Amino acid sequence: MRFPDRVTITEVGPRDGLQNEDQTIPLDRKIALVDALSATGLTRIEAASFVHPKAIPQMANAAEVMAGIERRPGVTYIGLVPNEVGARNAIEARVDEIAVVVSASESHNRANVNRSVAESLEAIRAVASLCREARIRWSGYISTAFGCPYEGAVDPARVLKIADRLWDAGAAAVALGDTIGIANPRQVLAIVTAFFEKLSATPLRLHFHDSASGNVATEDLVAMLHAMKIETGVDLEALIDAAWLAEEIVGRPLDGRVKRTLPRHTDAERARDSSHVS
Amino acid sequence: MRFPDRVTITEVGPRDGLQNEDQTIPLDRKIALVDALSATGLTRIEAASFVHPKAIPQMANAAEVMAGIERRPGVTYIGLVPNEVGARNAIEARVDEIAVVVSASESHNRANVNRSVAESLEAIRAVASLCREARIRWSGYISTAFGCPYEGAVDPARVLKIADRLWDAGAAAVALGDTIGIANPRQVLAIVTAFFEKLSATPLRLHFHDSASGNVATEDLVAMLHAMKIETGVDLEALIDAAWLAEEIVGRPLDGRVKRTLPRHTDAERARDSSHVS
Repeated sequence: MRFPDRVTITEVGPRDGLQNEDQTIPLDRKIALVDALSATGLTRIEAASFVHPKAIPQMANAAEVMAGIERRPGVTYIGLVPNEVGARNAIEARVDEIAVVVSASESHNRANVNRSVAESLEAIRAVASLCREARIRWSGYISTAFGCPYEGAVDPARVLKIADRLWDAGAAAVALGDTIGIANPRQVLAIVTAFFEKLSATPLRLHFHDSASGNVATEDLVAMLHAMKIETGVDLEALIDAAWLAEEIVGRPLDGRVKRTLPRHTDAERARDSSHVS
Repeated sequence: MRFPDRVTITEVGPRDGLQNEDQTIPLDRKIALVDALSATGLTRIEAASFVHPKAIPQMANAAEVMAGIERRPGVTYIGLVPNEVGARNAIEARVDEIAVVVSASESHNRANVNRSVAESLEAIRAVASLCREARIRWSGYISTAFGCPYEGAVDPARVLKIADRLWDAGAAAVALGDTIGIANPRQVLAIVTAFFEKLSATPLRLHFHDSASGNVATEDLVAMLHAMKIETGVDLEALIDAAWLAEEIVGRPLDGRVKRTLPRHTDAERARDSSHVS
């Protein structure tokens, strides 16, 4: 078994994390979270979702979030879009990259966006055209790639076929999402191996959920990767600060583990210690 | 990467699980939990700890637990013992197997039992003699095998040396414990590979913790293994019943995931459905 020397993390807390919160998060808190995350060395941040505010109220003000954040050089700020309207808004808000989603299973896609998978892929082609004109990258997310809440098992061949369609439409990368937190190691190995064989030129991203708690805490992921001598480019202490900020923002304990095992590193201490931080 | 066809699970809930609870668990509830677990197809259950009740009050009545449970054929009931006195009591209580513990790190062993590792290994030899006389198996647990709360990193060579000493003393198997939930995949692969090379005759068991929540929920582990087509011999529905019982007993939500995604299977339904259960 080989391990990589380096991984690239796409931080999805401001989008996938906040959109699952019950209460509305104020604009300035969203901006503060994105800025805290961009200060950690993370290079890819899903900053906003350009959905209709009626669909996901927590994602209102996507354009204002993009306008309010500090655009740190080297960081790619990603906007999730559901359709062409969203894509136009995201491009106008100057996102660096657009993310579009299609489900691997018909019934989940239908429940999610009231379209067939074929219709979603067609709509994605329209988004791709807009991105080409605006000269920004886009990537395709395939949700329910490891299992569907309605259909159960999902055929890996179907996942690869959709990935191929996204790549063909111009996606810069394809992400496979375990929407309901049901993937297992044997299955992941099989799908990833098949992906590398059949779509060897296509950059692959993987998006896993912990079924009870949703997204994995990024600081826990980074702590594990660093313990494995796998580079992330992320300053773990700064990331733990951002995790504490996220906990304040959502107003409930988040279940990241490492932030509770280390003393909280205040900004004052950070400034004082900065000579020790590489 | 190869996956095994089958794994054997040692259920530690009645011992490692309950001993971390604040309140005292009544004897009849402990017995009910062990009996619920032995009805699931689990073949190895740590049923009790023969420590002094002043040290771990939750583990009082170990002999009464052993006397009260239904001894299901094919199930090995294991008693954890800290010393010779505990071993005598465990043997008298008719455990099927004794488990003894030594830490890989000096400072953890000292904090835990106020002895050096060498002294603990010497005491284990005395326990081994008692087991030989009584003709029961014993296994050696090495705690802090993947990291120590006081010393940090633990040298794998030291872990293997202690394992070799336990094997030499007559252990039927050696278990490596990640006491503080700090192990990572690269490290586990390295230690397990070295173990298989240097101690190829010694059965190896692995005991991992999830740092925030302690033991992993057995029903989640079994659900994942079954999804991976790895046999456990365990009836998942019966195990979920036992998990709900455990939650009732400790009086707080346990963080197993699968039991919340499936409807609770009552005894009445189980009896009615029994023709469908293999």
